[in-house]
Amino acid sequence: MTNVDTHPVTVLGLGEMGSALARAFLSGGHPVTVWNRTRARAEPLIAEGAGGAESVRDAVAASPLVVVNVQGNAVAKDVLEQAGDALAGRDVLNLTDGTSAEASAVAEWVAERGARYLHGQLMTIAPGVGHPDATVFYGGSREVHDRYRGALDLLGGKGVLVSADAGVPTLYGMAVHGTMWGALNGFLHAAALLTKEGVDLTSFLGDAGPAMSSVLSLLPSLAAEVDSGEYAIEFGGLRHHLPSVVDLMRESEDRGVAGGVPALTLDLVRTAVADGHGDDSYSRLIEYFRA
Amino acid sequence: MTNVDTHPVTVLGLGEMGSALARAFLSGGHPVTVWNRTRARAEPLIAEGAGGAESVRDAVAASPLVVVNVQGNAVAKDVLEQAGDALAGRDVLNLTDGTSAEASAVAEWVAERGARYLHGQLMTIAPGVGHPDATVFYGGSREVHDRYRGALDLLGGKGVLVSADAGVPTLYGMAVHGTMWGALNGFLHAAALLTKEGVDLTSFLGDAGPAMSSVLSLLPSLAAEVDSGEYAIEFGGLRHHLPSVVDLMRESEDRGVAGGVPALTLDLVRTAVADGHGDDSYSRLIEYFRA
Ligand SMILES: NC(=O)c1ccc[n+]([C@@H]2O[C@H](COP(=O)([O-])OP(=O)(O)OC[C@H]3O[C@@H](n4cnc5c(N)ncnc54)[C@H](OP(=O)(O)O)[C@@H]3O)[C@@H](O)[C@H]2O)c1
Ligand SMILES: NC(=O)c1ccc[n+]([C@@H]2O[C@H](COP(=O)([O-])OP(=O)(O)OC[C@H]3O[C@@H](n4cnc5c(N)ncnc54)[C@H](OP(=O)(O)O)[C@@H]3O)[C@@H](O)[C@H]2O)c1
Repeated sequence: MTNVDTHPVTVLGLGEMGSALARAFLSGGHPVTVWNRTRARAEPLIAEGAGGAESVRDAVAASPLVVVNVQGNAVAKDVLEQAGDALAGRDVLNLTDGTSAEASAVAEWVAERGARYLHGQLMTIAPGVGHPDATVFYGGSREVHDRYRGALDLLGGKGVLVSADAGVPTLYGMAVHGTMWGALNGFLHAAALLTKEGVDLTSFLGDAGPAMSSVLSLLPSLAAEVDSGEYAIEFGGLRHHLPSVVDLMRESEDRGVAGGVPALTLDLVRTAVADGHGDDSYSRLIEYFRA
Repeated sequence: MTNVDTHPVTVLGLGEMGSALARAFLSGGHPVTVWNRTRARAEPLIAEGAGGAESVRDAVAASPLVVVNVQGNAVAKDVLEQAGDALAGRDVLNLTDGTSAEASAVAEWVAERGARYLHGQLMTIAPGVGHPDATVFYGGSREVHDRYRGALDLLGGKGVLVSADAGVPTLYGMAVHGTMWGALNGFLHAAALLTKEGVDLTSFLGDAGPAMSSVLSLLPSLAAEVDSGEYAIEFGGLRHHLPSVVDLMRESEDRGVAGGVPALTLDLVRTAVADGHGDDSYSRLIEYFRA
């Protein structure tokens, strides 16, 4: 398939990530204009074929698609503001991290200036930009998403428009990262127990492979339970989890391993069982986060 | 393949799980003798073809393989003790949950009575016993494991001997469950954020599928780092995680969602970065659990 999308692209912000983004667009044959507060960071990209710009205004005027990636959405807005009325009629892709409210605030501000807005949540670090497995969650203007699909595909092979709401991609990213951090914390806590017993973790993963890879297999049923608000299940309710969490807490104490990770789970599960939810699915715990 | 292993099996303890175990052995054509403190629970199994026993001693004398599954390892030992000298020369498979020290204590006590010992950590609830995907981690006597392999395969298709140490299967189970609870807590916390924004979780899983299924993809590298004690990595160190954890914490506060889950991660990551480990892998956090 030939990539016929070679729309000019402007990149505002050339930090670790912004430089990787600019390179990805260059690699796809797009005319790229770059701008960075500290001009020196633009030099290597200019040497690689990008055009420089004296001001944000000039940079924005150079391309229909304006990508912004800086430190925080307050800065993203400040930088875009420097474009003045050159912003009107442009398509803005903001790839800056923050909270969903911050993304939504930039989206609203950009719309008021007569530009279209797409927010992207990058799920990779800079060296992973452009990888076929790199995910980017997009939210906002479908028109912008579809028009520049070829350019977006240069950022990661797994780009997906998840919502018309510019705040949602951020939440998607948080859900993926939150699940990951939780899993890694649980794993490393238990790893402290295993390694105190002299078990090496590579052997553990070898032997426990099939069980470990089923660790996320409950997610679709949990999702359906939360969506329907029906937590009751026939087998494997919270009362079945409770004694195993207690054992993990006791093991942790026996071996002098810090117990914050199992204590958090124990508190949640014990409270839910005490509240009469022992025959409910683990998904019931969402009500305790909402409270 | 014909199952030529039809060693007689005794099952001590016929609660929810013990009854499922006895049924699995019956289904494989093993002569099964059952005993339970409360005799009434033996009746359905006797009706299904198991032999009853008046005492633990008689039950133990009936079979070379003695399976025990009761409420806690203190009880498991008490029950086995009632066998008196009938225990000598038997092969004991203890499938009772607890801590690793408790499993090891039963193993030691059984060995002193001249019996061989295998501990099994069941990774399924009772209705899942016998399922081809059900995992059981075994530790202790390889002789016992190998001799009764046919019988063990009736308990779950994914049985694996992980150690000569009877305490290790328990730790394996804790590592799988701990990783799972962590992942589910992280997911449900973020799910509270997503659903407050009106996103349904089934759509989320549909769109975020590839990213979610890569949540555990870091484990092999984390395992290798812990095993080698080398935490430094070129890309994606703790300083890259920190701002995203901060954003998750802020999002949680913005939306009035309980923050215990991100606070735990934030505390760990922030401490490690402050201690100068910002360029180390997430695996560095194991040192904080060990402390
Ligand atoms: N690095 C990664 O691997 C990675 C991964 C995922 C997401 N991200 C996200 O990408 C964004 C940028 O991160 P980064 O790692 O590239 O950061 P970085 O290397 O520290 O670069 C920060 C960028 O923001 C600019 N900036 C900061 N304050 C500014 C201001 N007041 N006015 C104008 N420009 C300002 C900097 O300009 P100067 O050069 O003039 O200081 C620089 O271009 C963040 O939202 C980050 O969360 C990064
Ligand atoms: N149920 C599951 O799905 C499941 C899943 C994984 C692991 N397990 C493990 O399997 C083991 C049994 O659990 P369960 O769910 O089957 O429990 P259960 O239904 O409550 O049955 C408990 C069993 O322990 C016996 N018992 C308790 N105290 C005793 C004593 N002092 N002397 C003699 N026998 C005593 C009970 O005998 P009585 O009938 O006389 O009270 C009964 O046979 C536990 O280690 C549990 O963690 C269970």
